[in-house]
Amino acid sequence: MSTIAELLRSDKLLQDVTIKGWVRTFRSNRFIALNDGSTINNIQCVLDFENTDESLLKRINTGAAIAVTGTLVESQGKGQKVEIQVANIEVLGDSNPEEYPIQPKRHSLEYLRENAHLRIRTNTFSAVMRLRSALSYAVHKYFTENGFYNFHAPIITGSDAEGAGEMFKVTNFEANKAPTDENGNIDYSQDFFGKETNLTVSGQLEAETYAMALGKVYTFGPTFRAENSNTTRHLAEFWMIEPEMAFHDLDMNMDLAEDFIKSVIKDVLSTCKDDLAFLENRLLQEEKSKPANQRSEMSLIEKLKFVSDNNFKRVSYTEAIDILRNSKPNKKKKFQFPVNEWGVDLQSEHERYLVEKHFKCPVILFDYPANIKAFYMRLNDDGKTVRAMDVLFPGIGEIVGGAQREERLDVLKNKMEVLGIEEEELWWYLDTRKFGTAVHSGFGLGFERLVQFVTGMGNIRDVIPFPRTPQNAEF
Amino acid sequence: MSTIAELLRSDKLLQDVTIKGWVRTFRSNRFIALNDGSTINNIQCVLDFENTDESLLKRINTGAAIAVTGTLVESQGKGQKVEIQVANIEVLGDSNPEEYPIQPKRHSLEYLRENAHLRIRTNTFSAVMRLRSALSYAVHKYFTENGFYNFHAPIITGSDAEGAGEMFKVTNFEANKAPTDENGNIDYSQDFFGKETNLTVSGQLEAETYAMALGKVYTFGPTFRAENSNTTRHLAEFWMIEPEMAFHDLDMNMDLAEDFIKSVIKDVLSTCKDDLAFLENRLLQEEKSKPANQRSEMSLIEKLKFVSDNNFKRVSYTEAIDILRNSKPNKKKKFQFPVNEWGVDLQSEHERYLVEKHFKCPVILFDYPANIKAFYMRLNDDGKTVRAMDVLFPGIGEIVGGAQREERLDVLKNKMEVLGIEEEELWWYLDTRKFGTAVHSGFGLGFERLVQFVTGMGNIRDVIPFPRTPQNAEF
Repeated sequence: MSTIAELLRSDKLLQDVTIKGWVRTFRSNRFIALNDGSTINNIQCVLDFENTDESLLKRINTGAAIAVTGTLVESQGKGQKVEIQVANIEVLGDSNPEEYPIQPKRHSLEYLRENAHLRIRTNTFSAVMRLRSALSYAVHKYFTENGFYNFHAPIITGSDAEGAGEMFKVTNFEANKAPTDENGNIDYSQDFFGKETNLTVSGQLEAETYAMALGKVYTFGPTFRAENSNTTRHLAEFWMIEPEMAFHDLDMNMDLAEDFIKSVIKDVLSTCKDDLAFLENRLLQEEKSKPANQRSEMSLIEKLKFVSDNNFKRVSYTEAIDILRNSKPNKKKKFQFPVNEWGVDLQSEHERYLVEKHFKCPVILFDYPANIKAFYMRLNDDGKTVRAMDVLFPGIGEIVGGAQREERLDVLKNKMEVLGIEEEELWWYLDTRKFGTAVHSGFGLGFERLVQFVTGMGNIRDVIPFPRTPQNAEF
Repeated sequence: MSTIAELLRSDKLLQDVTIKGWVRTFRSNRFIALNDGSTINNIQCVLDFENTDESLLKRINTGAAIAVTGTLVESQGKGQKVEIQVANIEVLGDSNPEEYPIQPKRHSLEYLRENAHLRIRTNTFSAVMRLRSALSYAVHKYFTENGFYNFHAPIITGSDAEGAGEMFKVTNFEANKAPTDENGNIDYSQDFFGKETNLTVSGQLEAETYAMALGKVYTFGPTFRAENSNTTRHLAEFWMIEPEMAFHDLDMNMDLAEDFIKSVIKDVLSTCKDDLAFLENRLLQEEKSKPANQRSEMSLIEKLKFVSDNNFKRVSYTEAIDILRNSKPNKKKKFQFPVNEWGVDLQSEHERYLVEKHFKCPVILFDYPANIKAFYMRLNDDGKTVRAMDVLFPGIGEIVGGAQREERLDVLKNKMEVLGIEEEELWWYLDTRKFGTAVHSGFGLGFERLVQFVTGMGNIRDVIPFPRTPQNAEF
């Protein structure tokens, strides 16, 4: 038995082959488009219908699983080079066309989301998920080849990296039956872990402890946000990539982030040609329904090549504020949040202006005001900015957030005190500064945002197999 | 700046080099053993102490971060081929020897577990975690090169694959403040996901939906058990690998499991020579304290080669019961659980007897009694066994559990009804059998058990960075 991908790569002309897969379409009682998931490409199986039982023909419906044996020959028709002259066909699993939810027609993405267990049987989702898989492998390959060690950060945690992220609670208590102490407080010592625990929002703090021993490490695992964000860019459960490197300052961190993103995009440009071509065409079709001035200037593949071949623009927060303050939309009061003074946090509309209108390329913003960034970021000598960086992408917004970490124990302790973060909570984190501290940096990249960018999918719920969002944990 | 791994691989003799790392030892005010985590090997830095400030010399303590510049020369001493003649040295981060918990002496594994954020700075744990990383990459490489797609199973779930696993609850409700309906029942519609949710115990059921479209998929992600098991083989949070393949029967499944395990072991045997040599020696030292008859017959590397070079023995459950029933320990009543009749579940002592005494090699047991296995396993024609398989390893016990899945809708529904599993709960799982069903198989491998086997570590808590166990979620 071969897969279709193997068959199309090989040179088996005129040989006998066996393929198992699912029927995509069946026309003229003669031509089966068969797909087995190994590639976006179907193989055409040509049936001698005059010598095939009618009862069998009736079972060849969209979605049915079949086994086909026959000879691989050059195709007479258009659209494919080779096809199978069927000698024998067996229906492994039927698919009742009256009931099968995935018909050979265009379904809305919303409808397919409700059938997330079957949407993977469509061209669009199989292409997206094969790309997701290829990107995942490209991530591991990049870091391994560059001397990083993979580090599995804990998922259940008692610590909160961001100091304020909304976290899901993890417990073994029966609902509303948690034991209490004499003061009426919940007695977490009786819970499974003997303390209050949550789902992690980031593996960074733990990764830092490993970077300060192994040198260069990265996490690639699920992270969680219990935020009621119903947008096309947010999930309650998503996968994050977090490299952390000893002896790296912010410039080296920016270099790494840029090289990393370019490398994984180049990787899938070469390994996923067929799926990307399909998705590019899908976007072109989708854009035809838009007014001409709202269509992209670049096709999907052009956009990917543009990003992988051009330098990201590096701009300090202070420069960015100047640009935004003097921008047309700011002067014409078109921004929902006007940019009047240094120190304000940048909104999505500002990031989009910088990336899509002003620079027209990916942008790395750095040196943000200290008071809009996390406690662990390294304070600059000006006393008011920190060595933070965000990578902003067209259409996606922030795809990477990172920083050089505050390696000075006294400065870090001061900052924690100001923010009311207790030292006892993070005693182990402080130990990394107490014993053999050194300059180090890292960043986090939301994997689904990268998959969105590479596949051109507009909604983040369509680039993860079973999305978790407010009021939705089906499957 | 180079890493020590790069330096030892390269040919930079007589060139100027800069290395940053942490001091492992400093002897005779002259010889620094420096490690940067890139390899188990230290580089010796030779100091001209007569021309070095005494105040600087005093700061070169175990655990301190330093930057060293100098010339790479052939070593005069034993134990290393090259060393650095130091021209300049800078202390980046001090380490007070009175306070630093990781002294250059043998610490107990229990003590190091309490310092899990610093234990990675020891030879043993850095070797273990580099191997863990290499194994992780070998897993992704194996599946990618064999036509599998990586599939990210959901972590937060409303479904329970095993039908009965003890699961952690995930909630956004304040403890003891969950809203209730008029009947006093918890009103989960007001929780974040609008329903009761848990941490996944397995991604298998979701992976099956993807296998039935992409052909061959695998998960590699965290899974959870809220079981109060305080053993050297159990964690509350662990990483699991679950391949799932359409059109694969149990024999193909066993072939894959065996080939997979052998391949990843061969992979790290060639990529992790230094770390394995260190761990092999560590085990030899450890065994010296044991009575001669309790020592292993094989060294660590011999054991890994034995597994990767020899066929696993395949034995049906029925054959295994015969062997056990007639075994010496059974007849002499040495088993805690005597084996008297067909149908009993095998205990760890039985598995160990089969693997370590009887066959003396990895064993795959298959065709188990239906009523001791999960609902989704394919019923054999005998009506009483299912196409399940377990791979048993010396010293580890069960490392893989898998099965051919029940692909027949009516048989599956019957089984679910008997076990009281509601169809509405798993409507989407049943859809895979309703539309285009086909023979398919898969297995689960507990990643930490594999890491234990490869590193020779006796306690599973020592092969994951920050272990989660009953009463323990520190860091």
